Amino acid sequence: MQFELTTNILDSLILAIEEKNTAFLNKQLHDLYPQDIAIIINQLNLDQAAYLYEILDDDVAPIVLLELDDDKREELLATFSSKEIAEQIDNMDSDDAADVISELPKKIQEEVLSHIEDIDQASDIAELINFEEGTAGSLMAKELVSVYAHETVNACIEEIRKQTDNVDVMYAVYVLDTNERLIGMLSLKKLIISHPLAKIEEIYEPDIQFVKTNTSTEDVAEFMQKFDLVVLPVVDQLGRLVGRITIDDVMDVIKENSEENIQRMSGISDDVDSNDKLWRLSRARIPWLLVGLCGGIIGSRIIGSYEDQIKIHPEMAYFIPLIGAMGGNVGVQTSAIIVQGLANNTLLGDNIGSKLLKELGVGLINGLICSGLILSYAFLIEDWKLAATVSLALMTVILCASFLGTFVPLTLNRFKINPALATGPFVTTLNDIIGITIYFFMGHILYSFF
Amino acid sequence: MQFELTTNILDSLILAIEEKNTAFLNKQLHDLYPQDIAIIINQLNLDQAAYLYEILDDDVAPIVLLELDDDKREELLATFSSKEIAEQIDNMDSDDAADVISELPKKIQEEVLSHIEDIDQASDIAELINFEEGTAGSLMAKELVSVYAHETVNACIEEIRKQTDNVDVMYAVYVLDTNERLIGMLSLKKLIISHPLAKIEEIYEPDIQFVKTNTSTEDVAEFMQKFDLVVLPVVDQLGRLVGRITIDDVMDVIKENSEENIQRMSGISDDVDSNDKLWRLSRARIPWLLVGLCGGIIGSRIIGSYEDQIKIHPEMAYFIPLIGAMGGNVGVQTSAIIVQGLANNTLLGDNIGSKLLKELGVGLINGLICSGLILSYAFLIEDWKLAATVSLALMTVILCASFLGTFVPLTLNRFKINPALATGPFVTTLNDIIGITIYFFMGHILYSFF
Repeated sequence: MQFELTTNILDSLILAIEEKNTAFLNKQLHDLYPQDIAIIINQLNLDQAAYLYEILDDDVAPIVLLELDDDKREELLATFSSKEIAEQIDNMDSDDAADVISELPKKIQEEVLSHIEDIDQASDIAELINFEEGTAGSLMAKELVSVYAHETVNACIEEIRKQTDNVDVMYAVYVLDTNERLIGMLSLKKLIISHPLAKIEEIYEPDIQFVKTNTSTEDVAEFMQKFDLVVLPVVDQLGRLVGRITIDDVMDVIKENSEENIQRMSGISDDVDSNDKLWRLSRARIPWLLVGLCGGIIGSRIIGSYEDQIKIHPEMAYFIPLIGAMGGNVGVQTSAIIVQGLANNTLLGDNIGSKLLKELGVGLINGLICSGLILSYAFLIEDWKLAATVSLALMTVILCASFLGTFVPLTLNRFKINPALATGPFVTTLNDIIGITIYFFMGHILYSFF
Repeated sequence: MQFELTTNILDSLILAIEEKNTAFLNKQLHDLYPQDIAIIINQLNLDQAAYLYEILDDDVAPIVLLELDDDKREELLATFSSKEIAEQIDNMDSDDAADVISELPKKIQEEVLSHIEDIDQASDIAELINFEEGTAGSLMAKELVSVYAHETVNACIEEIRKQTDNVDVMYAVYVLDTNERLIGMLSLKKLIISHPLAKIEEIYEPDIQFVKTNTSTEDVAEFMQKFDLVVLPVVDQLGRLVGRITIDDVMDVIKENSEENIQRMSGISDDVDSNDKLWRLSRARIPWLLVGLCGGIIGSRIIGSYEDQIKIHPEMAYFIPLIGAMGGNVGVQTSAIIVQGLANNTLLGDNIGSKLLKELGVGLINGLICSGLILSYAFLIEDWKLAATVSLALMTVILCASFLGTFVPLTLNRFKINPALATGPFVTTLNDIIGITIYFFMGHILYSFF
């Protein structure tokens, strides 16, 4: 069912491109969906990509363009004239066209708009590119079907005939009052099965959900998911219908957010993927590595301050990695659960105290199990003082990590900072330092006084 | 726009429930969406939940039931008789009804089915609960509108009038041949704007995408996302139309998979959320903690074998946490990028070699930066031998971690094991052990021979 690009297929296509074997390429690409052709082009260098794009059918090319990676599309478009770009986006949905244009430099944007033949399309795009990134306005499309409440079903069907030239899939018909304000919707089903002379105002559904142009994309995504909506109308500040958002665009937002969160958790600070350039991949990772490096240096100073003790009791050093690793593991486990609860709204935002207690409870159970096991092990292998130090320190470290893993994301969330930031290297590094401090302090006490 | 449940609101509702103040509760719940009422019930104990559910309007209650957490719904349904459950699911979409029923014990399932008044609904549900979890069959609903190719537009509209009793939102009309096989679809737009006497076979769209009942839900999700589909028809092994899957059900699948992956990455082995019981939360986390514990013990044995060296050079111990932490950080960063690439199909599956080279390149750049910095630091603070040991070991550890972070997920993926498993505690623990081994081995060489 699904196309899978292998190195074999890719190599044969590259060879054909180098040999300008258009017949072979057309044959190979003919059975593929535009989405699959985009996957191929993403793997080509610019010359190869431009050549392959050039030979695509006119109805396929714009879809391929939309499906390309952002970087590859930008590269490819840079080789086009403004007029050529205008031809590609003339038949796109207005939201897709606006997405493509908004990646271009301001000056080129104007040139491209001036070359678009369909005046309505050009003015729709011009309107859309002005909405701020991250708002409902930047996600919406202008293609929709609307009717006035005072019209009849027959007049409405006539109107739809006219309007649907621009609309590929029609999910609903929006109902407006005479001031263009959105007052409800009409299901197509209702339209099909109602009497031709019935008035729209008698059959429409006034209970309609909508967002404003300045609603954030995160709120739009949450809203559509919560109510299982496929399409959501967008109104301006006066309540006038200005566009609609479909679920596929929202899914892209959700996917990007989830990927960004996973990257945050993994200590990657920029939106990168594995096809990016070496230097970009390195740069995205170095900040958290430097944080880890600083954490490691602080750790070395703390251990360094117990130099005399290590000389007498070198066995203290054996369990340094265990204490650090366990603190990190517990911290990440705890914060992942809290971050997920916040994302799903299954946590009450103002209820930090009871969450802390619960996570400390989990920490207590797991801490008792782990420190019990390590106590038995270290008692058998080493002396009782070391065994006591390691197991007491481990217990304390696990409780501390449970506390931090709960407290840090809840606090970040309260200050409207993405709590996923707390789930990764930050919590791990902090727990590392705290763990070592506790471990050596306890060792110092036990070895000094007993 | 969005309802947010605070402890204040919750406390006032609980008080009203305890006082059986139905008037207050009705007033409070009246303006809320069923989705919000479900959020409230999720926070109540069973008695409170049952009381609140009892006073809900008949049209609201089934939606609330569907939106509840699985655990809470199971608890609540256990207090209902089979007849009461049947009443709740009688008007649900067949896929939702099947979801609810399939959570019940087999014996109760049969009782509930026998109490459902609508025979068609009962037989639809009975069919759906037989499909294996994780297949398209288990996701699909039976509610759809279909017509035969040889009918006219007029006859078709008449047929739709009859069929739409059961269908809330109609996205498309499916076109069948005389053997019930799916041969295409008809957009509602086309239906509305075509001549009443036109034959369906003249106006339908034969190029239709579908899946089979045994297609995996992951493949369904990937397919619908790739092609931006809102609804996808499902056929049986003979190509006969048996149901349809809508995007909202697929979004739930995607969300669950993404949450599961984040939990895997964080070292949590079961599907839990922060409202689960203490013991369940502990049990889900203990396996990876035990892995970490074993890793720590192995680490202690490795360090232990260098006891004499630590006695003479206690400063070797200072940088143990740094080496461990950096190996872990680089390993997680690398594997996160690879796992993400695999999930997005931006990696060619058979192309391990070139990915390894690239990640080693990134490791080399970041390794040079980090080990350069630590060399300068350690040289200023400690002696040159320690500085050389730490920086050489760090470089080697970063390269090893880059290698493992690439190799492990790609290998797991090749053997059809979820590569996200490699992104969490597994890679971290492995890198910890390898890091310490390299560090002490290099220290041993440098201190022995220079």
